[in-house]
Amino acid sequence: MVEKPLILITNDDGVKAPGIRALISYLRPLGRVVVVAPDRPQSGTAHAVTIAHPLRLELITKEPGYEEYSCNGTPADCVKLAFKIVMRRRPDFLFSGINHGTNASINIVYSGTMAAVLEGALAGVPSVGFSLDNYSQRADFGPAGKFVKTIATSVITGGLPEGICLNVNIPDVPEDQIKGIMVCRQAHGTWQEDFDEREDPHGRPYYWMTGVYARIGDDRDTDQWAVENNFVAVVPVQFDLTAYQAIETLRNRF
Amino acid sequence: MVEKPLILITNDDGVKAPGIRALISYLRPLGRVVVVAPDRPQSGTAHAVTIAHPLRLELITKEPGYEEYSCNGTPADCVKLAFKIVMRRRPDFLFSGINHGTNASINIVYSGTMAAVLEGALAGVPSVGFSLDNYSQRADFGPAGKFVKTIATSVITGGLPEGICLNVNIPDVPEDQIKGIMVCRQAHGTWQEDFDEREDPHGRPYYWMTGVYARIGDDRDTDQWAVENNFVAVVPVQFDLTAYQAIETLRNRF
Repeated sequence: MVEKPLILITNDDGVKAPGIRALISYLRPLGRVVVVAPDRPQSGTAHAVTIAHPLRLELITKEPGYEEYSCNGTPADCVKLAFKIVMRRRPDFLFSGINHGTNASINIVYSGTMAAVLEGALAGVPSVGFSLDNYSQRADFGPAGKFVKTIATSVITGGLPEGICLNVNIPDVPEDQIKGIMVCRQAHGTWQEDFDEREDPHGRPYYWMTGVYARIGDDRDTDQWAVENNFVAVVPVQFDLTAYQAIETLRNRF
Repeated sequence: MVEKPLILITNDDGVKAPGIRALISYLRPLGRVVVVAPDRPQSGTAHAVTIAHPLRLELITKEPGYEEYSCNGTPADCVKLAFKIVMRRRPDFLFSGINHGTNASINIVYSGTMAAVLEGALAGVPSVGFSLDNYSQRADFGPAGKFVKTIATSVITGGLPEGICLNVNIPDVPEDQIKGIMVCRQAHGTWQEDFDEREDPHGRPYYWMTGVYARIGDDRDTDQWAVENNFVAVVPVQFDLTAYQAIETLRNRF
C-alpha cells in the first residue's frame, strides 16, 4: 500500500478561523495532515518573519494521520517551524487558507496566506493558497469545497512546475453559480489608502488605516476579472521580482 | 528658479540607524527631504501593514527644506502615512535604506526596506532601495556614498520606467575596491532556516530562528554574484508575481 502524502496546512487568519477549519475538512481525506497555524489573526503580515523574539508551538490535537499546532509567529514562521521542528522534514504538499477575503491582484503582496505558500515553493514543496472573496467571519466556505478538492487533487497527483505555486481565489456565490476554473494573471490593481484621523483623550492624534481597492484596467485575463465574473481564479506565482524587460534599458544608464 | 524635487526617505532599521542617517546626508543636497521612518528596528517585517492598531507620528525635526518624523508602524505604513498625512501628496521620488545587510537574492521577499520601495512604485513614484552588505550597526556607509549619489541623481534626472523600482546592493569594501555598477537579475538563492531549541525556566520549549543563505547556482548575471565580486548590484523590480510561462501548461490541467 502506498503511504498517503504528508500535507501541511496553514493560514494567516489564525488556527480558529472558519476558513482553515473548512480547508482541513476538505483535505483530511487526501493525506496525512499536519496543521501549524498562527494562534491569532495575522492578516496583513505579508512575508514577515520573527527574529526579535522566540517562537512557541502549542499542540492542540494529535491522532493517527492528523496533528494540529498553534504558533505565536507569522504564517512564514509557521511554515519554517513546521518543516524543521514539527515534521523534521519537508511535507509533500502545502495548502494555505482558506483566506477570509480575496488575495487577487495586488493583495498577494500583503498576504500572509500567500507568504506561507511562497515559503513552501522556496523549499521546493508544491504549494497552493486558497482565498474566498468575502472578509466576514461568517462567510460560507461550502461552495469552495468542490474547487478546493479538485485543485488539491490535481496538484497531489500531477505536481506543479518547479518554482511555481498557485494563488487561487474563489468567488463568494453559491456553487451552481460558479462558472469554472480560469488560469490567469495577476491584475494590476492597487490600494488607495486613507487614514481616519482621531485624537486620543490626551489630545494626541492617531490614525486608523483604511483604503479602497483601485482597479487599473479591466482585462479579462486577470484574477480580478475572473472572480468578479464568478470564475475560480488560478494564478501561477513565482518569487523572482526581476523586471527583465528593463535590464537592457537600465544598462545604458549606469 | 525650478523648485527642488520632493524626496521621501524611509527604511526598516529605524529612524536612528546609521544607514538612514548616511542616506539622509547624501540626499539632502538633491531636494526637499521628508523622512518618515519606523521608531524602532523593523527588519524582516516584509510588506506587513498595520490594521489592528492605530498609527502614530512623532515630529523630530522641522526646518526649511527638511522634515523628519518617526512612526510606530512598519515601513509600508510609513510610506502610506507619509503620502496621505505628512505630505498630503505623493513625493517626486522615494529612497529607502541604507539597509544594514544585503537585500540581494531572495532577501527582497522578507525586506521591509524593499516593501517601502514597492509601495512607492505602486503609487507611481520612482523609488529605489539601497542596502549595504554588512549587518553591523558599526558598518561603514562612507564608500556607499558615491554610488548612492550617482544612482539617485540618475533617477531624479531621468526617472524610471513605469511600474519599475530598483533594488541596489552595495558591497562592503573600501570605495577604491568597488569595480562599478552592474544592472542584473535577482539571484535564485534561498534561506535554510534552523531553530535554536531552548527551554524556559518553567520547562516549556521555545525556538529562536536562525538560518544560513543557500546559494542556488553561481550565475554572473545575478545580484548575489555582483556584490560578492565588488560590484554595486542594481536589479529592476516589478510587483507582478505571475509566472507567465506556466499559464498555458496549467490551462491544460484545469
